[in-house]
Amino acid sequence: MSDIKKVVLAYSGGLDTSVILKWLQDTYQCEVITFTADIGQGEELEPARRKALNFGIKPENIFIDDLREEFVRDFVFPMFRANAIYEGEYLLGTSIARPLIAKRQIEIANQLNADAVSHGATGKGNDQVRFELGYYALNPNIRVIAPWREWDLLSREKLLDYAEKAGIEIDMKHKQGGAPYSMDANLLHISYEGRHLEDPNAEAEESMWRWTVSPEQAPDSPEYIDLEYERGDIVAINGVRLSPAAVLTKLNELGGKHGIGRLDLVENRYVGMKSRGCYETPGGTIMLKGHRAIESITLDREVAHLKDDLMPRYASLVYNGYWWSPERKALQVLIDHTQQHVNGFVRLKLYKGNVYTVSRDSKDSLFDKTIATFDDDGGAYNQADAAGFIKLNALRMRIESKAGRK
Amino acid sequence: MSDIKKVVLAYSGGLDTSVILKWLQDTYQCEVITFTADIGQGEELEPARRKALNFGIKPENIFIDDLREEFVRDFVFPMFRANAIYEGEYLLGTSIARPLIAKRQIEIANQLNADAVSHGATGKGNDQVRFELGYYALNPNIRVIAPWREWDLLSREKLLDYAEKAGIEIDMKHKQGGAPYSMDANLLHISYEGRHLEDPNAEAEESMWRWTVSPEQAPDSPEYIDLEYERGDIVAINGVRLSPAAVLTKLNELGGKHGIGRLDLVENRYVGMKSRGCYETPGGTIMLKGHRAIESITLDREVAHLKDDLMPRYASLVYNGYWWSPERKALQVLIDHTQQHVNGFVRLKLYKGNVYTVSRDSKDSLFDKTIATFDDDGGAYNQADAAGFIKLNALRMRIESKAGRK
Amino acid sequence: MSDIKKVVLAYSGGLDTSVILKWLQDTYQCEVITFTADIGQGEELEPARRKALNFGIKPENIFIDDLREEFVRDFVFPMFRANAIYEGEYLLGTSIARPLIAKRQIEIANQLNADAVSHGATGKGNDQVRFELGYYALNPNIRVIAPWREWDLLSREKLLDYAEKAGIEIDMKHKQGGAPYSMDANLLHISYEGRHLEDPNAEAEESMWRWTVSPEQAPDSPEYIDLEYERGDIVAINGVRLSPAAVLTKLNELGGKHGIGRLDLVENRYVGMKSRGCYETPGGTIMLKGHRAIESITLDREVAHLKDDLMPRYASLVYNGYWWSPERKALQVLIDHTQQHVNGFVRLKLYKGNVYTVSRDSKDSLFDKTIATFDDDGGAYNQADAAGFIKLNALRMRIESKAGRK
Amino acid sequence: MSDIKKVVLAYSGGLDTSVILKWLQDTYQCEVITFTADIGQGEELEPARRKALNFGIKPENIFIDDLREEFVRDFVFPMFRANAIYEGEYLLGTSIARPLIAKRQIEIANQLNADAVSHGATGKGNDQVRFELGYYALNPNIRVIAPWREWDLLSREKLLDYAEKAGIEIDMKHKQGGAPYSMDANLLHISYEGRHLEDPNAEAEESMWRWTVSPEQAPDSPEYIDLEYERGDIVAINGVRLSPAAVLTKLNELGGKHGIGRLDLVENRYVGMKSRGCYETPGGTIMLKGHRAIESITLDREVAHLKDDLMPRYASLVYNGYWWSPERKALQVLIDHTQQHVNGFVRLKLYKGNVYTVSRDSKDSLFDKTIATFDDDGGAYNQADAAGFIKLNALRMRIESKAGRK
Repeated sequence: MSDIKKVVLAYSGGLDTSVILKWLQDTYQCEVITFTADIGQGEELEPARRKALNFGIKPENIFIDDLREEFVRDFVFPMFRANAIYEGEYLLGTSIARPLIAKRQIEIANQLNADAVSHGATGKGNDQVRFELGYYALNPNIRVIAPWREWDLLSREKLLDYAEKAGIEIDMKHKQGGAPYSMDANLLHISYEGRHLEDPNAEAEESMWRWTVSPEQAPDSPEYIDLEYERGDIVAINGVRLSPAAVLTKLNELGGKHGIGRLDLVENRYVGMKSRGCYETPGGTIMLKGHRAIESITLDREVAHLKDDLMPRYASLVYNGYWWSPERKALQVLIDHTQQHVNGFVRLKLYKGNVYTVSRDSKDSLFDKTIATFDDDGGAYNQADAAGFIKLNALRMRIESKAGRK
Repeated sequence: MSDIKKVVLAYSGGLDTSVILKWLQDTYQCEVITFTADIGQGEELEPARRKALNFGIKPENIFIDDLREEFVRDFVFPMFRANAIYEGEYLLGTSIARPLIAKRQIEIANQLNADAVSHGATGKGNDQVRFELGYYALNPNIRVIAPWREWDLLSREKLLDYAEKAGIEIDMKHKQGGAPYSMDANLLHISYEGRHLEDPNAEAEESMWRWTVSPEQAPDSPEYIDLEYERGDIVAINGVRLSPAAVLTKLNELGGKHGIGRLDLVENRYVGMKSRGCYETPGGTIMLKGHRAIESITLDREVAHLKDDLMPRYASLVYNGYWWSPERKALQVLIDHTQQHVNGFVRLKLYKGNVYTVSRDSKDSLFDKTIATFDDDGGAYNQADAAGFIKLNALRMRIESKAGRK
Repeated sequence: MSDIKKVVLAYSGGLDTSVILKWLQDTYQCEVITFTADIGQGEELEPARRKALNFGIKPENIFIDDLREEFVRDFVFPMFRANAIYEGEYLLGTSIARPLIAKRQIEIANQLNADAVSHGATGKGNDQVRFELGYYALNPNIRVIAPWREWDLLSREKLLDYAEKAGIEIDMKHKQGGAPYSMDANLLHISYEGRHLEDPNAEAEESMWRWTVSPEQAPDSPEYIDLEYERGDIVAINGVRLSPAAVLTKLNELGGKHGIGRLDLVENRYVGMKSRGCYETPGGTIMLKGHRAIESITLDREVAHLKDDLMPRYASLVYNGYWWSPERKALQVLIDHTQQHVNGFVRLKLYKGNVYTVSRDSKDSLFDKTIATFDDDGGAYNQADAAGFIKLNALRMRIESKAGRK
Repeated sequence: MSDIKKVVLAYSGGLDTSVILKWLQDTYQCEVITFTADIGQGEELEPARRKALNFGIKPENIFIDDLREEFVRDFVFPMFRANAIYEGEYLLGTSIARPLIAKRQIEIANQLNADAVSHGATGKGNDQVRFELGYYALNPNIRVIAPWREWDLLSREKLLDYAEKAGIEIDMKHKQGGAPYSMDANLLHISYEGRHLEDPNAEAEESMWRWTVSPEQAPDSPEYIDLEYERGDIVAINGVRLSPAAVLTKLNELGGKHGIGRLDLVENRYVGMKSRGCYETPGGTIMLKGHRAIESITLDREVAHLKDDLMPRYASLVYNGYWWSPERKALQVLIDHTQQHVNGFVRLKLYKGNVYTVSRDSKDSLFDKTIATFDDDGGAYNQADAAGFIKLNALRMRIESKAGRK
């Protein structure tokens, strides 16, 4: 019937992707390969194997990978070198995980000669775009099946009905009306959308937040931490050298404990509508602050400004799903080039939701105390130079003023 | 001797500008006009009159102006419409006050036919540039006297010695080694530089901060506030309509009480060196958060992104002293144009150093619940459209991938 | 059957849109309103009326409008104020006409309570996007019928067959294989695509070009012309005051005579593929040169650079069909603001394909001979100032160099 | 007297730098090292040696280097990869030569332990900035002597008087009032400034131009040329593989013969004033056209647009003298990265001042004929996808329109 023989499904083991799995089998009569990744979402993955087996998936067609190190090393860290923030606030926690999932799915598809890939993202969100742009960029001939855009199970009732008929196990929460929020988690963040949050004028409930204690409940004493940077990446915390994933895990723990990284915003989706989301990014919030601090003493001014000017563009590329695009890669080449001297130490203070930069130090520092001092500098800087500097910078404005313009 | 007849001095009444006043009289044998402005620095201004009279300044040559409303209405508010942040962190509190001082000095100079203006900024800092670019832009023929770049009183001892000989009253603090920091204050912020802070690896002392309580000492209960916006500016707090200066005064009070707006950073000065500064911007920190929130529901995505792309450039212009430049004005025309629909309400939560957006609402909202919902939207958005959207956006990447590029 | 009652068709009177007209009647059983615009394409419009009547269109449903003045005044001129060039070469001749067509179609639709609009652009090109983004921006509830994306008449044979059965008159050229190129013309330009040009390695034939003589055939003597500018727009040629459309008509005549404005390029379409096009833009090529020249003496440096930095973005917006978007409008506000002093005269020399700026003059000139001269300037500019200017601009690089960076 | 022991002078052998040489000896009582570079200015260099010897310069202190290959390979070619144009027209011919001179001067200074460098650029122009920013970036401790900013020989008469007294040979032209223009030449271009040109409303005289015949005098038959590109650089002309300098030499010859590359403009100098200049850049004008053409089929759209967006900034950096800055290098890293697939062939037609792209071809082409065709493409592109693409891109504008905005 269908010309699709094999499809690699991004499979979480949850209700939705289980229904998709069954629906793919029913609709396309094709062999399904399940791919389940640990990117730090904090859920056990082995149940996904058991469930897949229950659907008749062959053991050799079940892929369960721990991608946490690759995720932080090759995706999160490069993005933080750019100080990427979308629309002034969002740290791109969901966006940055999709390209890795897409990459691994395509690798598996290529390896097993699958002709299609599939995912559980809806037709209204950004994630479908992020997945599929990745698929197409990495394999231009791949077929993409996006069940949410194809099937008619658009209401919760229909989905549950289909699941029940298919003998899919349904958690109690789903029977009781489903999770109050649509959530997504990985080592960088957890996000909340939908339901109660769909009114941007309604405050998020305290009970919603999962990774961070409320600032009110955080410890009454601040905690200082020391971050060591090499080429723009954190390599040690409090003197202990850690792998990329261990760095982020540790910072999440510290940030979560101190109530750091909660965010409530309305963002503009690539598909055209505004959407309200809440995010917890404890470790990422600390990383951004620390990276700005180490760059502040190690980057040249104009290089830093060039990065700042390009940052919104870079962030939009990541948000919109263009991680694998040639333009994101070109920007990354520039950004990575700038990080060669971004080495040194930053001390931060964590306290009830706040991250304060307290001090920074580097053998590659461009901070020149001799020149910066307000005291006598012994001639390191000739103040008279400033007169000429100002005069020439003012020249065009003086000419304009003489011409009578206002 | 000198060809300068009359000079308008930006006079604070403090030791440094008092020495300058005397030095101008001694060096240029000219008539000095003192100009003292209340821009919310929180000091009494009348002592400046008394001191000026003591120097023999004619009463009609003493100008003491309350510029607080103009400062917030015509400088602070327009800048916050741009969401301006310099180098990712600095809210430009010092930068934004200089253009107003310069403007008023030139107005007075024009009025009294003065041929020169003078200020107390040093030859190493940004403020000399900000003052003088303003002077030249507003009066291309004005003469500028920058004593710190001309005289030989470069050490504290020489300055005090000169003051003593001139019979200038010297506060006890100066005799005891001077203020530990170089400070600047106005309604938007207070800044600290120099001394202890010249080592970027040394933590700022708690005793340094003046406007905000430490987050640790802030109230244990959060406080909610409601801001009302009209065309991008706050016009009411908690339902009470306020003038621009009253808005900022109130927000400073609220922010200070809750320990909001402390910042410790290393910045890149326009004159070429890095400098460490600490800043307290309680009201401004609240304003930035609130403005982002109201824009998030009222601005079109691409307009918001255009603003974000231009923001670093705008912020650099303000930082570098180009307020009166034609390019800053051109950007302002664009920014102000975008604010016509930035109306509505934002609720924020203040708690121990944090400002959280809690909700936002507007009659001009572009948030479309019907479309944004994850529930059935009754056809408001056709999910199938996303397939074509993705396919065409992916096309160039597929072609590139087929060409064998990686 | 169909729920569409009335549709406004952009009708040229040619074969394709005639087939569309019939197809709309056949397929949707709806009332068709034809709209035919004179935007300077150089074809008679009255035949379109006759043909429409032949299809049974009611006389009151036939709209034939001369939009030439509006086209140049409100679309071409504003775009040239931006010096807009797409991808370094293309003067956007096709792009700029679409928003006007879309606007007028929607006006007619609103006036006659039509529920749909339709156009003859194919599903592979940019024009469908430009038309439809305009439709949707100006009337969010309008229905759009794009026959080329819907019907099955995708080959030339099927189309001719349909036309023949429908009794549509078919020009001899169509019977003999059709025009060798797909062409589009308006007062700004004529474009050629398709057929022979689909091989980017094949030279365009001399016989293809229609508006310009070949440079080889152009007059052997150069011709000088004088342009007068007001607020960035040309208001007079050789001392004769002209309306916007008359300006462009005259410049096309002059440019065409001198073989000016031929272009052969490969461009990147918004829908994702590369496309080869040839363009003749005689008047526009002259206008761009002249506008740069008048701006060169009347615009401040940083304002000019700001415009240059934003230009590619503006050009992409126009190319991609976002004329009616809020971000294009915001940019236009900035651009128009910068043109207030762009007044004066430019003399150009036209000769065998070339446009040379020969001289420029303005009462609003910022060119200051006193300062610019290499001769003694009598102190207008203090050369010693340059030392300080350079020293401070070099400071950060010296610090970096001292830090051992390369 | 002076603490300067050895100075490396950029010495052309002409009158001005000969006077400088003598003035340095007189004023600083220091050892002078002369450095004369062949960067293609088309003058014999050996006379400079003889003249230097006449001033008593030791033979081992006379450096005469042929830098033509380095100039084109490491400066001109990298800049043309960026398609750099300053202010929409200027190809940066003077700007790009200065960093190389500066580099070589510093190399010599380091080699001979000289403590200073000197140049003959005036205090009003850009070249002083370009030289000195280079010096400081490459040797932060170097001393710079800029005679034109220091001495009192500011009028032509004083200079000639000084020369006569010093026994410096004076060409007849200088005695007769000097060259009518200030000129600068290198392999990329020749420039004219000053005198007659100081009135921007005066047409340049035909007799001024030196490298190009007038278009009127150029051959009546066009000439076709084939350029081969590798990684963005031309490596062969008409099938003949050539070194970088040989490429530019050949293109200058071709361009000059056909009257290509004349330009008359008013530009904005970095030091603040407007300046009128005329330029001949025959080879460079051809190179720019060719590079755009080869990029048009080998660069991805968004990469090309990223380059276009950054180009004005890159051009300003080169113009302003920031070649050796970290930000120019960071941009270059991005630009060079994009050129890896910019390989292939471009055919151009040269005729009386015009350069036309005629065809382009590449094994790395991203031009996909199957998709681009207007004929039936056999399903390579699904036209229906465009509907969804447009719908989602229009969504935000429809929402805005529904909200009643105009």
